[in-house]
Amino acid sequence: MTKARAGRPAGGSQRRDRILSAARTLFAAKGFQQTSLRAVATDADVDVALISHYFGNKRGLFVAVIELPVDPAEVFASLVSVPAHRLGSELLRQLLTIWSSPAGPGLIAVFRSSLGGDQELLRDFITALVLPEVRARLADAGVEDLDRRIPLAATQVMGVMAMRHLLELEPVASMTIDDLVRTLGPNVDRLLTDPL
Amino acid sequence: MTKARAGRPAGGSQRRDRILSAARTLFAAKGFQQTSLRAVATDADVDVALISHYFGNKRGLFVAVIELPVDPAEVFASLVSVPAHRLGSELLRQLLTIWSSPAGPGLIAVFRSSLGGDQELLRDFITALVLPEVRARLADAGVEDLDRRIPLAATQVMGVMAMRHLLELEPVASMTIDDLVRTLGPNVDRLLTDPL
Repeated sequence: MTKARAGRPAGGSQRRDRILSAARTLFAAKGFQQTSLRAVATDADVDVALISHYFGNKRGLFVAVIELPVDPAEVFASLVSVPAHRLGSELLRQLLTIWSSPAGPGLIAVFRSSLGGDQELLRDFITALVLPEVRARLADAGVEDLDRRIPLAATQVMGVMAMRHLLELEPVASMTIDDLVRTLGPNVDRLLTDPL
Repeated sequence: MTKARAGRPAGGSQRRDRILSAARTLFAAKGFQQTSLRAVATDADVDVALISHYFGNKRGLFVAVIELPVDPAEVFASLVSVPAHRLGSELLRQLLTIWSSPAGPGLIAVFRSSLGGDQELLRDFITALVLPEVRARLADAGVEDLDRRIPLAATQVMGVMAMRHLLELEPVASMTIDDLVRTLGPNVDRLLTDPL
């Protein structure tokens, strides 16, 4: 580990690529949960410590594999002071902001290809990365029935993303983020915290 | 017209196919609104009355082109006695029912390919067929701001369709239609008729 941190190992870029390639294959075949860093290391013929060196942890590796330009953990960190009953709205605001940023086109491509049939990665992304963060935040606030609430709230978020960025249907495509959060945010908040 | 109705014209199947082919090309290139039956007839080298004979009107032709197993008009006809403030829920119920029926796989294929990049047909379908029907019904009930309400409500409907039938993410994929209508219907109702 010390040695790895001291500088880029000889052939480092090649080994990094091997790790990404092995991870991509394993994530696609077995999903996020069932893929171990050990298995990735074995397939890539590297020491497991090298994966930590490059990608931090399995989440970091996954974010790199799907070429996500933002780490979901950073998005959620900014929501820490938002009260639970407004968490849905603010999450919607963060996601709309990211999708309208320079990071947007990459995310739209992943989303499009996932809905077009290659759904494993997006499904893993939602279930493994996004949902647990929201869940922990709401569980802390004492909200129950999260196994249903979060996926139901995700339907509203996914729908506005698809309408705005994939179908580009007006007026949703051109509405301001404030306007969308004002009109659709209450739906997300309601599904996350109101009686269902 | 009388002659056409009297029986299948010689070479009818071929002419029907020519009409569908011409219509598919024109709808894709110019959209539903900008495509005239006259232009389809010219491109297919048939009399415009033959299009009416086979497909009734432009909507019927469009439904045939996208190989839609149900006519949206029939779905909306069943909603005529539903009060405006419940129209969103009942529309959601109808759509979920259709998508879970034998007609579902065809619709899912259209939806998937549309979100995957070939969005013109689905966009036309929503704007030309579904939205005007909902709009007329709500306008009759005195609801205003429909240019925003209907597309916003459509985001919730589209999101649950994508989550349930494209990503097949649990628990949304396995929830009963009643359960989905009970939990998500109020979102659709709210966007259609509550103060925004």
